[in-house]
Amino acid sequence: MAIANTSRRVPEPALLIEGLRAMLGERCSVNPGILDRHGHDESYHETHKPDVVVFPESTEEVAAIMRLARKHDAPVIPFGVGTSLEGHVAALEGGISIDMGRMNRIVEVNAADLDVLVEAGVTRKQLNNDLRDQGLFFPIDPGADATIGGMASTRASGTNAVRYGTMRENVLGLTIVTADGRIMKTGGRARKSSAGYDLTRLFVGSEGTLGIITEVRLRLYGIPETMAAAVTPFPTIADAVNTVIGVIQSGIPVARIELLDEMQMKASNLYSKLDYAEQPTLFIEFHGSERGVAEQVELVKAIAAEYGGGEFRWSVKPEERTKLWQARHDAYYAGLSLRPGSRGWPTDVCVPISRLAECIVETRKDIEASGLLAMILGHVGDGNFHVTILVDPDYPEELRRAEAFNDRLVDRALAMGGTCTGEHGIGFGKIAFLEREHGEAVGLMRLIKQTLDPENRMNPGKIFKA
Amino acid sequence: MAIANTSRRVPEPALLIEGLRAMLGERCSVNPGILDRHGHDESYHETHKPDVVVFPESTEEVAAIMRLARKHDAPVIPFGVGTSLEGHVAALEGGISIDMGRMNRIVEVNAADLDVLVEAGVTRKQLNNDLRDQGLFFPIDPGADATIGGMASTRASGTNAVRYGTMRENVLGLTIVTADGRIMKTGGRARKSSAGYDLTRLFVGSEGTLGIITEVRLRLYGIPETMAAAVTPFPTIADAVNTVIGVIQSGIPVARIELLDEMQMKASNLYSKLDYAEQPTLFIEFHGSERGVAEQVELVKAIAAEYGGGEFRWSVKPEERTKLWQARHDAYYAGLSLRPGSRGWPTDVCVPISRLAECIVETRKDIEASGLLAMILGHVGDGNFHVTILVDPDYPEELRRAEAFNDRLVDRALAMGGTCTGEHGIGFGKIAFLEREHGEAVGLMRLIKQTLDPENRMNPGKIFKA
Repeated sequence: MAIANTSRRVPEPALLIEGLRAMLGERCSVNPGILDRHGHDESYHETHKPDVVVFPESTEEVAAIMRLARKHDAPVIPFGVGTSLEGHVAALEGGISIDMGRMNRIVEVNAADLDVLVEAGVTRKQLNNDLRDQGLFFPIDPGADATIGGMASTRASGTNAVRYGTMRENVLGLTIVTADGRIMKTGGRARKSSAGYDLTRLFVGSEGTLGIITEVRLRLYGIPETMAAAVTPFPTIADAVNTVIGVIQSGIPVARIELLDEMQMKASNLYSKLDYAEQPTLFIEFHGSERGVAEQVELVKAIAAEYGGGEFRWSVKPEERTKLWQARHDAYYAGLSLRPGSRGWPTDVCVPISRLAECIVETRKDIEASGLLAMILGHVGDGNFHVTILVDPDYPEELRRAEAFNDRLVDRALAMGGTCTGEHGIGFGKIAFLEREHGEAVGLMRLIKQTLDPENRMNPGKIFKA
Repeated sequence: MAIANTSRRVPEPALLIEGLRAMLGERCSVNPGILDRHGHDESYHETHKPDVVVFPESTEEVAAIMRLARKHDAPVIPFGVGTSLEGHVAALEGGISIDMGRMNRIVEVNAADLDVLVEAGVTRKQLNNDLRDQGLFFPIDPGADATIGGMASTRASGTNAVRYGTMRENVLGLTIVTADGRIMKTGGRARKSSAGYDLTRLFVGSEGTLGIITEVRLRLYGIPETMAAAVTPFPTIADAVNTVIGVIQSGIPVARIELLDEMQMKASNLYSKLDYAEQPTLFIEFHGSERGVAEQVELVKAIAAEYGGGEFRWSVKPEERTKLWQARHDAYYAGLSLRPGSRGWPTDVCVPISRLAECIVETRKDIEASGLLAMILGHVGDGNFHVTILVDPDYPEELRRAEAFNDRLVDRALAMGGTCTGEHGIGFGKIAFLEREHGEAVGLMRLIKQTLDPENRMNPGKIFKA
């Protein structure tokens, strides 16, 4: 992967590093491999290395780092595990990458109130492993095992959002370190509040550009009494999507409803050694009481049948459920394996569900016309779907074709009342789309950025151009 | 009611009024009755009359009014129907009250996508009457028939929030007129988005202090197949609340679960000519499929029985449901009728549900010790409850006693991790509590206010002191 020539900003990096070393000792690194790993995420975007990576262990340390960054005019970029997809962690102007990995304590589980306080570096799988014995879980599940801080910063969602919402709905409060190194709490433990501006939701989705999230209070859920999984193939992608629309409009509270197109199913059969029909397929999950789940399954089955849905495989047994979902879980890597050496360019539009079938069908046609190798899979219950374009970053012409395709896709989604990003965020990859989507309101966002971070120190070059 | 001597701000009110008249003709009033009606809400707070009331019919007119307000240095206060409870509509420094009542068009219903675009002056009952034929409803229901714009501005909720969330979760996007008279759209029609800062939620709950909301896009729901209501009395208030805690912790998706204490039940029997047991009582509603509702009823009945719940009256028939809920619906006015000529001082704390029983029991004791006449009723599924203190505004000593009681109540709730206001907002009645609850974060809120409204023109004196 290309490593960009960054326009460096820190006037005297040696002094900055010296100051950080004095504060953090070994927990401050300029090792080239570590700098490189902190300069890029899982997407096709180019690497921009920071000057230094630090590993704080407390909110107070993060605040001290911020004050030092100010002294040395260094940009600060928060880093979780680097699984973002729009270049969020790239150090576009150099500076300090704050790796939150050592802030991974689960501070306080309130089982009775269904809430938990975690440090920002806790990953979602770590959290769920910890919660399982108490019969609780946290449903938001972007594909990767991301950190909770990273998920809050990109307003992540995943397969369960159709039932449980996104990070927007499930963050109750935050601890923030501001650009001038102060520590602040937002939100609280009450389920609802009308006390002042909703700072929590201002920071959720702000991609590290307004402050550093060091702690997150989350809403939890009881593990459902019964969970059932179902897989069913359809003659066409429109039939599959129309089934989804029917399910959502009937108000059936499915926990997950995911679409994999024909190409994705081919890749998944190959990669995961499965024998699913190579047709557009829905993966569905049901949560509830035994009777409730049985009722949901019946209703969905009837709707699927109306649209020519094939064999409706379903199961409530954990090991069979896992097997049924395997193709979905491995989908991204299965896709990549179709073209060794390629990188994924995952698009992320989300449209009103009434326009979803039209949007996906047109997009599939555009893929064919563009001569791109790409799969469609999506959180279709929310109207959100990803096209994973397999690109070879060494071929600029191919990147340009992918870019032009994505451009058309975003225009199509915006024309339908949708958004350029359902869950990945803007990073530095979608800045132009943000303007196209929100127009004049971007000026207001920028004003808030300038107010909270007047020196443009917090993850500069993300969401907006400097 | 006392009318305060306002410190007026508009340097030349006559010129301002002349300008507004030229623009709006008859839709601009200085009639004393109209000025008075726009200077106070439904609470005990004193009246502060605006200099003038205007009745715009479009977003563009609101923008033109804002520009004129700027020219004449006039404060601007948005007005829905005046049912707020913390003095939100009072013109503390005079200026222009913008009555949104003529902006009451339902612009666009998207039944397939379960969303609707309304002008800010549409009331919730108007909206639901309009939606009923399409099998849809909007669940957020503060007691009063408030406007959607007002509900968005105070981040309102009501009895259905335990199942459907509050305005925070149910507003998809807004049209805003900024302090400098520009028109801006936030959010969109997609169910989720990670595109930039969440301006929608910054304006939801901002009480008219950051801009004027002129249009609101809302999430809708299908009217459930089956709705059942149940009423059941308990030996003690702690038993009733412990039943609620059990229901919430079991994840039973009740649509409503409301508590009325003994005093409230007495008032309601008297006012609504009912014969309920004069004991702490839960009013519960269930939404779902026929089987789903029957299952929920069974589960809740079993939990209630554990805590000594009495006769569990329930029904799925609309007219019986209405009758069962009548005491709840009339509760506020039933309370007031206990003491003719009194006004209600409704408190609004919300605590984590594990502390709810303790909080309510201590509060009931405090009511007795204070010698106040007060009832408790609440949206207990959210941990939110109101004490309606019946005060006579002509007796300052009584107001002081109520104030001291409320002060202790807020401290009690904050010590338990709660909030001073679950759904009413800060207005000018709870400014001190906001500081107590959010500490340093209030500085950040204030910074945002100063950035978006540098001349402190938008509803000045609310949420913060000038």
